[in-house]
Amino acid sequence: MSRFHDEILEQPEVASGLIDKSGPTMDAIGARYRELRPRGVVIVARGSSDHAALYAKYLFGRRNRALVSLAAPSLFTRYSSPPSLEGQCVIGISQSGESPDVVAVIEEAVRQKAMTVAITNNKDSKLASVAELVVHLHAGPERSVPASKTYTASLLALALMSQAIDPDDAFGADLARVPSSMAGALKREVALDELAPALSGPRAVVLGRGFNFSTAEEVALKLTETSYMLARAWSIADFEHGPIALVEPGFPVLLVGGGGSVQADLEGIAARLVDYGCHVVGLFDGTSSPPGMEAALVHDSGLPEELTPLTLVVLGQLLAHRVAVARGVDPDQPRALHKITRTW
Amino acid sequence: MSRFHDEILEQPEVASGLIDKSGPTMDAIGARYRELRPRGVVIVARGSSDHAALYAKYLFGRRNRALVSLAAPSLFTRYSSPPSLEGQCVIGISQSGESPDVVAVIEEAVRQKAMTVAITNNKDSKLASVAELVVHLHAGPERSVPASKTYTASLLALALMSQAIDPDDAFGADLARVPSSMAGALKREVALDELAPALSGPRAVVLGRGFNFSTAEEVALKLTETSYMLARAWSIADFEHGPIALVEPGFPVLLVGGGGSVQADLEGIAARLVDYGCHVVGLFDGTSSPPGMEAALVHDSGLPEELTPLTLVVLGQLLAHRVAVARGVDPDQPRALHKITRTW
Repeated sequence: MSRFHDEILEQPEVASGLIDKSGPTMDAIGARYRELRPRGVVIVARGSSDHAALYAKYLFGRRNRALVSLAAPSLFTRYSSPPSLEGQCVIGISQSGESPDVVAVIEEAVRQKAMTVAITNNKDSKLASVAELVVHLHAGPERSVPASKTYTASLLALALMSQAIDPDDAFGADLARVPSSMAGALKREVALDELAPALSGPRAVVLGRGFNFSTAEEVALKLTETSYMLARAWSIADFEHGPIALVEPGFPVLLVGGGGSVQADLEGIAARLVDYGCHVVGLFDGTSSPPGMEAALVHDSGLPEELTPLTLVVLGQLLAHRVAVARGVDPDQPRALHKITRTW
Repeated sequence: MSRFHDEILEQPEVASGLIDKSGPTMDAIGARYRELRPRGVVIVARGSSDHAALYAKYLFGRRNRALVSLAAPSLFTRYSSPPSLEGQCVIGISQSGESPDVVAVIEEAVRQKAMTVAITNNKDSKLASVAELVVHLHAGPERSVPASKTYTASLLALALMSQAIDPDDAFGADLARVPSSMAGALKREVALDELAPALSGPRAVVLGRGFNFSTAEEVALKLTETSYMLARAWSIADFEHGPIALVEPGFPVLLVGGGGSVQADLEGIAARLVDYGCHVVGLFDGTSSPPGMEAALVHDSGLPEELTPLTLVVLGQLLAHRVAVARGVDPDQPRALHKITRTW
């Protein structure tokens, strides 16, 4: 169908390969982290990788009690005035490993003697050469311009890191089920046809909260990159603080949710938006669909909320693909895009 | 004209009052910060206040070498698993001082014995009662639902804090010129008529970088709240990493820039977008307008780039107001909004 679609389908295998191959690296990261006891975690990334960083903010916060900050690269590359990274664990995420601003932050972290980790799909990249510890994603070449498999591989690498730092048998068993859960999500593709019509217009809002706020951001980016719609994600809480003024009857809103602790937030906003007459559609994992929605795909991976971003984003990628095809757009040829964006 | 417009006009006076009245509080904050030497700064806020937090990420990073992280409130309120805040300076920003999630983060910071600061327009609020140090914005009642004066007062409070922590004569003189610079920006209102027509459609992109990324976010929110357009802000660097695929000839893009270290980024993206045939308009302070733009307002406050978010957002507020009026929308009565949003 397209390179984008092909690579979406590769994800269970990539996830499985990463689990198999990353053991020694994860052990080394866990040991180093426990030895250093970092004050916190700093993550630098751009685009989809930055959404993986957003996921880690919640995951490391909840599982590892780590305060996570997302670096502002321009402080390092434009203002020549980097903040103190003393005692931090600094993680750079870049598919290509060649993003100059990600490399610049890791170089500065090395200069400041912080612990550094590179998460990249290119073990021979500049980023890998600079960082102390390297997680190679082993995802194979990503030829599609919109990222898919390197995004889920980055999420999984971060989850494996969290587990290596604070091992837990139950979470370990859940991690082992991720590849088959993603394969299960892929089988639901046809059911997405019911959601696609709501996303035929020039704009859409995508909402999530907590762990799946990152999923909302990533799905909005996929819709924007592949279908040229202006899709904007908000955390449900921020959305209710002002931007909700935007919606009107017929306005398309996509909700993503993995149940758990934010289920009541999802139900609350769904009821409010349905009440306004919005076109509310949803992607859910492990939870029922709030009432009154126009269409929803409910998957049940059996994964805990913390890991549902891995299955829900697969559904979101497939949805973005179907929406693009329905609009007659080639998702492999986004306008004005190059695969490696060299921003400083 | 409207309460929103009235309050936009009050901003120089509010800024001047804050400078006059906050001296002892700022001295206390500076002394406490230097005594504790925090590991970093954590900020919790929602909506417009979160954009002020984004400004502080750059300002404290550059001026005070502080690593700033923006808190994820749901870790505190939904997942009951707050990250470690040991040794941090934790700042809560809330106009009303009654945002339960902002209060919850400050309460947890107090429990963890971190330094806490409240920035609020209500000195009798819950937030003010919980925090160790309180910056009262003295902005008077904010009756308009879209915030204006409490946003600039929050920016200025953060800049005064930065100065109190690391005093510098030149920056002090610049701070003293903020009220008159804002008054100068207000005088440019009529010139905004040339920019408004580009923003008559259902969507728009707003771009900035570095210090004025926060301005781009805040202006996008004002356009969304008052005119019901889906206006989305990106940092120029992130925009070039994928979302740029979205634009096509005639697509409206608003650039905001205060010159300085990111001027080349602004010129680069402006040239690229003009080349595509986008409708590119801009708000600039202290720098010339990149060539080929459809319309631009160039103000010259004489302020350093670090303080241009205070003048540029005033222009952005006025622009949002004019766009709303041109669309026949009452900016004082956004749909579906309440002034105090009680998200947890």
